[in-house]
Amino acid sequence: MDFTYYNPVHAYFGAHCIEKHPEEFTRCGRRALLVTGRSSRVNGSLDDVTEVLDAAGITWDIYDGVLSNPTIASVRQGAAFARSHESDFLVAIGGGSPMDTAKGISLLARQDLPDDRLFCAEYYTDDVLPTILIPTTAGTGSEVSEYAVLSDERAKTKLSISTPLIYPRAAYLDYRYTRSLGRNNTVYPALDALSRSIEGILSQKGDPMITSLALEGIRSIASCFPALLEFRLTDSDRERLLYGAYLGGLVLAHTSTTVVHAMGHSLTVSRGIVHGRANALCLPGYLRFTARTAPGPVERILEAMQLNSLEEFQDLIDRFLGEKEVLTEEEILAFTRVTAPKRNIPNCLVVPTEADVEAMFREI
Amino acid sequence: MDFTYYNPVHAYFGAHCIEKHPEEFTRCGRRALLVTGRSSRVNGSLDDVTEVLDAAGITWDIYDGVLSNPTIASVRQGAAFARSHESDFLVAIGGGSPMDTAKGISLLARQDLPDDRLFCAEYYTDDVLPTILIPTTAGTGSEVSEYAVLSDERAKTKLSISTPLIYPRAAYLDYRYTRSLGRNNTVYPALDALSRSIEGILSQKGDPMITSLALEGIRSIASCFPALLEFRLTDSDRERLLYGAYLGGLVLAHTSTTVVHAMGHSLTVSRGIVHGRANALCLPGYLRFTARTAPGPVERILEAMQLNSLEEFQDLIDRFLGEKEVLTEEEILAFTRVTAPKRNIPNCLVVPTEADVEAMFREI
Repeated sequence: MDFTYYNPVHAYFGAHCIEKHPEEFTRCGRRALLVTGRSSRVNGSLDDVTEVLDAAGITWDIYDGVLSNPTIASVRQGAAFARSHESDFLVAIGGGSPMDTAKGISLLARQDLPDDRLFCAEYYTDDVLPTILIPTTAGTGSEVSEYAVLSDERAKTKLSISTPLIYPRAAYLDYRYTRSLGRNNTVYPALDALSRSIEGILSQKGDPMITSLALEGIRSIASCFPALLEFRLTDSDRERLLYGAYLGGLVLAHTSTTVVHAMGHSLTVSRGIVHGRANALCLPGYLRFTARTAPGPVERILEAMQLNSLEEFQDLIDRFLGEKEVLTEEEILAFTRVTAPKRNIPNCLVVPTEADVEAMFREI
Repeated sequence: MDFTYYNPVHAYFGAHCIEKHPEEFTRCGRRALLVTGRSSRVNGSLDDVTEVLDAAGITWDIYDGVLSNPTIASVRQGAAFARSHESDFLVAIGGGSPMDTAKGISLLARQDLPDDRLFCAEYYTDDVLPTILIPTTAGTGSEVSEYAVLSDERAKTKLSISTPLIYPRAAYLDYRYTRSLGRNNTVYPALDALSRSIEGILSQKGDPMITSLALEGIRSIASCFPALLEFRLTDSDRERLLYGAYLGGLVLAHTSTTVVHAMGHSLTVSRGIVHGRANALCLPGYLRFTARTAPGPVERILEAMQLNSLEEFQDLIDRFLGEKEVLTEEEILAFTRVTAPKRNIPNCLVVPTEADVEAMFREI
């Protein structure tokens, strides 16, 4: 049982948590840059933040040039904005895109890193802007991780900035901001969070501590399956989804991802299938594949979901996904070629060969 | 479900973890002060630390004036030692006493705090020495908490320095250092750690996240009950005890303690009963008392220990403790008077009245 555990993010969870714990904002400086999209104006989160900032006499500016898949260029633009406004700290409000944008800005606002060094931690100095992250979807877990995923348009791929330097100072998790999310923006992030906890358990980097947090996350999300299927969610369901997503974030921060995210990435890039749905398409196949060699962990996962078999799990996912995408023979072969050499493949508890990856694509 | 979670300690767990992860030492500075007692020379921990420091070219001095219940005076002496040796950081090796001494030194080496301000966080500045903590017993959990418990000899009581400033930078948890511990130094710390996880669940400050960590800690320690009763421990048992103690520390750092620690304190101060044994004497009574009003959480605790009833729990504790101390009528009344107004009493999930505390003392 060898493991390390580290997560320095101060998490505040619950309704009205920003109002109840405004102290983190004051600690960060006198001038804030709010990084956000449009939804924060609708769900009440932006008002809650500006109210606390105004009450504390903290000046604030808004950067809303966030792209839904943030590019290097958009982050550089945000960093220039932060420099010109002399921002002391960043407050990201929204889903994964504003949060990852803010984490990128926190690094680039104070350091001059050319594109070819942007994803190489050895070139970073510790001069970064502190960030406060406020998720308004229950899925990404970016609020507690050291990763910022950016699109490299030249290389036509997504790359991660990965450094403890960009761990957020604090995360505020208030389920009220997720009330206005529609079905797809609720169900797919929930499946994404579920996937992260499951992948954390079925990872070489897993350990008893992470498994314990991941099982708690799985139980929390699974307790919302009936409400999610009918899409009739109470505040308590919204709260348990956000709690499950937070735990999935703690797991991800530790174990990174596996073949599920690697395969899902191809489906997103080439077929435009949204992230959470793409992972959900791949998840049952990975469970079946792993169960052949390591049935114990898979049984614990099913038990946490109160499911009796892998067939029940496949049925459940099928009910969430409805009509599934069909992959052509060419796509299966092309996606396999891209996926097999990815660096999260060796993370898998049972490492799949290229033939295994191909078989998992066929099972979709 | 309102909660906050924060624990910034970088934990390294497993055999040879110091050797495998020497980087934390280098990050802390060029001159270390080792705060330790005698046992670290026997169990191999001191050698492992000095080897890593020597290899990194870090100068080190030893302060071994640690008392088994550290006093304010002994910490002031250590702080003067750190100043005169221009120590950049502290490495504590041992049980709760060296660790709490080092945490006290980390504050007092850089700040001039008179006795009447020493336990008041509002007087602290953030100028503290970083600490690295290496527990060699599996019990206190001090390696991941923001508390340092010191004896105030004038006031004839124990008081806590409590501030996020003294969270250790890192903790190294290597079960090999606990191999040489005898029965009492193994069993009582284990019961202490068990108590902390149980108290965390039965606390007003508990929450789902803490309950989840605490249940994992309880399961880990309970899996060693048979080996502990016979005192025939394998390395795997030692490892699971240390893991349980670590989790108990994470729980304690969050919820603080309850009436169990408050009552146990009187038994330690007035009757000289060691800390872990004193808590174990009080624990079954607190479970029975709480179960009358809040049976659910108590059932989850029993289930995690694979016990069917509170009687089975009492029997188990009785087997660990052997012949129990008998309290006189005067002691019961005196201990109740001291315990009832303590500040950890309102922490209890079901808050006991003075009469309840008296009844719990009688049940011992």
